[in-house]
Amino acid sequence: MTPHDYANENFQRFCDELVDLLRLPSVSTDPERKHAVLDTADWLAAHMHQIGLENIAIMPTAGYPVVYADWLHAGISAPTLLIYGHYDVQPAVLEDGWQHDPFTPEIRENRLYARGSADDKGQVMVHLKAIESLLANGGCPVNVKYIIEGEEEIGSPNLAAFVTQHKDLLKADICVISDTGIHSLEQPLIYYSLRGLLSFELIVSGPTRDLHSGYGGMLHNPNQAIAEIVAQLHHPDGSVAVPGFYDDVLLLSDAERAELAKANMPDSEWQKMMGDLPEWGEAGYIRIEKYGARPTLEINGINGGYTGEGFKTVIPAKAIAKISCRLVANQKPEKIWEHIQNFITQITPPTVRCEVRYLGGGEPAYTPIDHPAVQAAVRAYGSQWDNPVLFARGGGSIPIVADFQSLLHVPVVLMGFSLPDAGAHGPNESFHLTMYRKGIHTIITYLHEVKNAAN
Amino acid sequence: MTPHDYANENFQRFCDELVDLLRLPSVSTDPERKHAVLDTADWLAAHMHQIGLENIAIMPTAGYPVVYADWLHAGISAPTLLIYGHYDVQPAVLEDGWQHDPFTPEIRENRLYARGSADDKGQVMVHLKAIESLLANGGCPVNVKYIIEGEEEIGSPNLAAFVTQHKDLLKADICVISDTGIHSLEQPLIYYSLRGLLSFELIVSGPTRDLHSGYGGMLHNPNQAIAEIVAQLHHPDGSVAVPGFYDDVLLLSDAERAELAKANMPDSEWQKMMGDLPEWGEAGYIRIEKYGARPTLEINGINGGYTGEGFKTVIPAKAIAKISCRLVANQKPEKIWEHIQNFITQITPPTVRCEVRYLGGGEPAYTPIDHPAVQAAVRAYGSQWDNPVLFARGGGSIPIVADFQSLLHVPVVLMGFSLPDAGAHGPNESFHLTMYRKGIHTIITYLHEVKNAAN
Repeated sequence: MTPHDYANENFQRFCDELVDLLRLPSVSTDPERKHAVLDTADWLAAHMHQIGLENIAIMPTAGYPVVYADWLHAGISAPTLLIYGHYDVQPAVLEDGWQHDPFTPEIRENRLYARGSADDKGQVMVHLKAIESLLANGGCPVNVKYIIEGEEEIGSPNLAAFVTQHKDLLKADICVISDTGIHSLEQPLIYYSLRGLLSFELIVSGPTRDLHSGYGGMLHNPNQAIAEIVAQLHHPDGSVAVPGFYDDVLLLSDAERAELAKANMPDSEWQKMMGDLPEWGEAGYIRIEKYGARPTLEINGINGGYTGEGFKTVIPAKAIAKISCRLVANQKPEKIWEHIQNFITQITPPTVRCEVRYLGGGEPAYTPIDHPAVQAAVRAYGSQWDNPVLFARGGGSIPIVADFQSLLHVPVVLMGFSLPDAGAHGPNESFHLTMYRKGIHTIITYLHEVKNAAN
Repeated sequence: MTPHDYANENFQRFCDELVDLLRLPSVSTDPERKHAVLDTADWLAAHMHQIGLENIAIMPTAGYPVVYADWLHAGISAPTLLIYGHYDVQPAVLEDGWQHDPFTPEIRENRLYARGSADDKGQVMVHLKAIESLLANGGCPVNVKYIIEGEEEIGSPNLAAFVTQHKDLLKADICVISDTGIHSLEQPLIYYSLRGLLSFELIVSGPTRDLHSGYGGMLHNPNQAIAEIVAQLHHPDGSVAVPGFYDDVLLLSDAERAELAKANMPDSEWQKMMGDLPEWGEAGYIRIEKYGARPTLEINGINGGYTGEGFKTVIPAKAIAKISCRLVANQKPEKIWEHIQNFITQITPPTVRCEVRYLGGGEPAYTPIDHPAVQAAVRAYGSQWDNPVLFARGGGSIPIVADFQSLLHVPVVLMGFSLPDAGAHGPNESFHLTMYRKGIHTIITYLHEVKNAAN
């Protein structure tokens, strides 16, 4: 039997097994779910054993463990793939608007509804069912290593340390991550880059205590001063005003722009998101370029004084803003952080005090479209879909993608199977069963196609 | 016994009674404090009854009631005084930096600490203890009417209508308001003008729902847009940028500037309030002029997105600011409101939606220094203090002062007893017990001195 036939014949069981996994409420941010998170790691380890993977280990970290397994019998000349996923999920309660208990999976109209179905348990199972289909029918053409972590939804605080500590164990030629989306049921799409992140806090202070606004007129109100500082962070044309901000940005080639244009956000999606408001931002770039290929500086939060019911005539002692930059290929968070600190010092007026605090960061990730490991993915999707694969740069960040690149020096390929309306992080999250089935076939094909990609 | 001896003998009880009143958390802006606000009106009415006032009534308005009482037995030739105060207070919670629960009064170093102690319950009690001392010892030389309202801290939205509706009941020759401050423990000061107020809300909206900041770069973040709009409300020189804003401002005479200079805020007070930060605001004016004789526009609150612990990469659907203008003699709130609406419409970029909502307003007030009712106050302060009385324009607003002037056609005299470091509207508000005692004696004397002032 071919691995593909095996996958088709066993698909109902594959669904039942995914349902079992989804019953475990592995909410990593909720201390009360600790046992469920640990049970999920156990479930995965047992399942990996059952399907023929080897060297299975529930490996401790400072937080939840990483589940490791491998199969290394493809021979010394075959490349080794490192496959990453996560077994923890976002919080979910019925009251958020779920049609049923989020940890009691239900199938309706060929979709499996449950928390974690798309993000990321369904996609983890795509990989496990693909390798099972191969191992049950003669083996896998490449060597594979799996690391499934339990803290992605809380920002993977311990994964970089884990990867650093286990560099030898995790040595690979290519890393595959299935934790992103696809364009639509009919249209495959590969994200070949993700933005990095730099997050900081800006604190502007003035009076030693909150003042009655009767004092207004002679002192610089921190609410006003923070608005003036924040307003100077962009030029009127929408570009970021921090000197040096764009210095290292990898420019887009015409060929890349042509590829991106095919996957641009359609007007209908813009209107759903923004109503009739016109677009904003750097001139000369289309939407997908603005959010995927250009760095940004966003004010995620601003707060000072009284904004409750009614009004309070107060001048606050301080005001704060939480700001994050999305960084693109070639930009270094630490360098951008230097530029930002210098600029804020430069634009702070003498009439207030200003302080900045680093909150977190991660490098951008980028694997060129023409990399053989990406082209193998194109052929793998091509085996299951008629429409040619689109390429996009993702606007978000998965810090671990960049960590794999920089710590293990491997190209990272993102092969996502979640639909745009999957509702990841929201109520009624679902995984389309067609995506589950096609995903398994795609990965089986990929493990063949990638055989020569690393050489 | 003289009324003054009576006040001295009963002062400890007067303090205990004020403490009782301060235990009631009458926060008018907070709907959850509704019962406490109403209980406070009840407490006052009962207390007025107890000290011998007459015709006591808790009179309804569209909001919180006005507590009325009078004593009209001074004879037909004696003038009638209308005395105004308020029984509601600003919001206060321990987390704002209070050393103890703001509604559990504590006495330390001869100061009574509690929300409302200075603004305005302590000053309301100055009047009630003065009239009690007179009524218990032969009566009052003038007729007195008291109206204590419950909505001053939310801009007295219903008091003008109340005054209009009860013009006959409130008919008087002079109006006295004790809701302001004094220069220092040693230095009496009379505010002969107050600024008017105009308060509004600015709402800037963009996306139809909060977005993941991975979308950043193509849409105008409402947090950034509100900062840009707010930053344009002032010129770099500190003046308000709204066209027409200064059109009607009554300019200061040289004589008035000389009087004001005597009461200017000393450097020591500035440093206590602002540390080593330099002054800000319109060039060519000294501090007391900037906050008393010049209009301002202050950002009382600004809020949008996430500003809690850590960070959340969100682009919020909307951001809001609460803004208030302090207006000076001759300026009309409705005219300024027109100017502001026009300017905000003009500076709103097409990439966001902007909405303004009027929250409240009141006219500025002004009574010349040489008015007999003001001069009677000078003599009353003179009975308790050695230093000659100073004159100042107040930076704050008591909208009803202007309403009394225009609706009842009476001069308004402001006799304040709050110290500059009382912390009104901030944490650890306090009322100095020496001011409480001297205030009671000053008002007893004033009710004698004012007997001939209205003729």
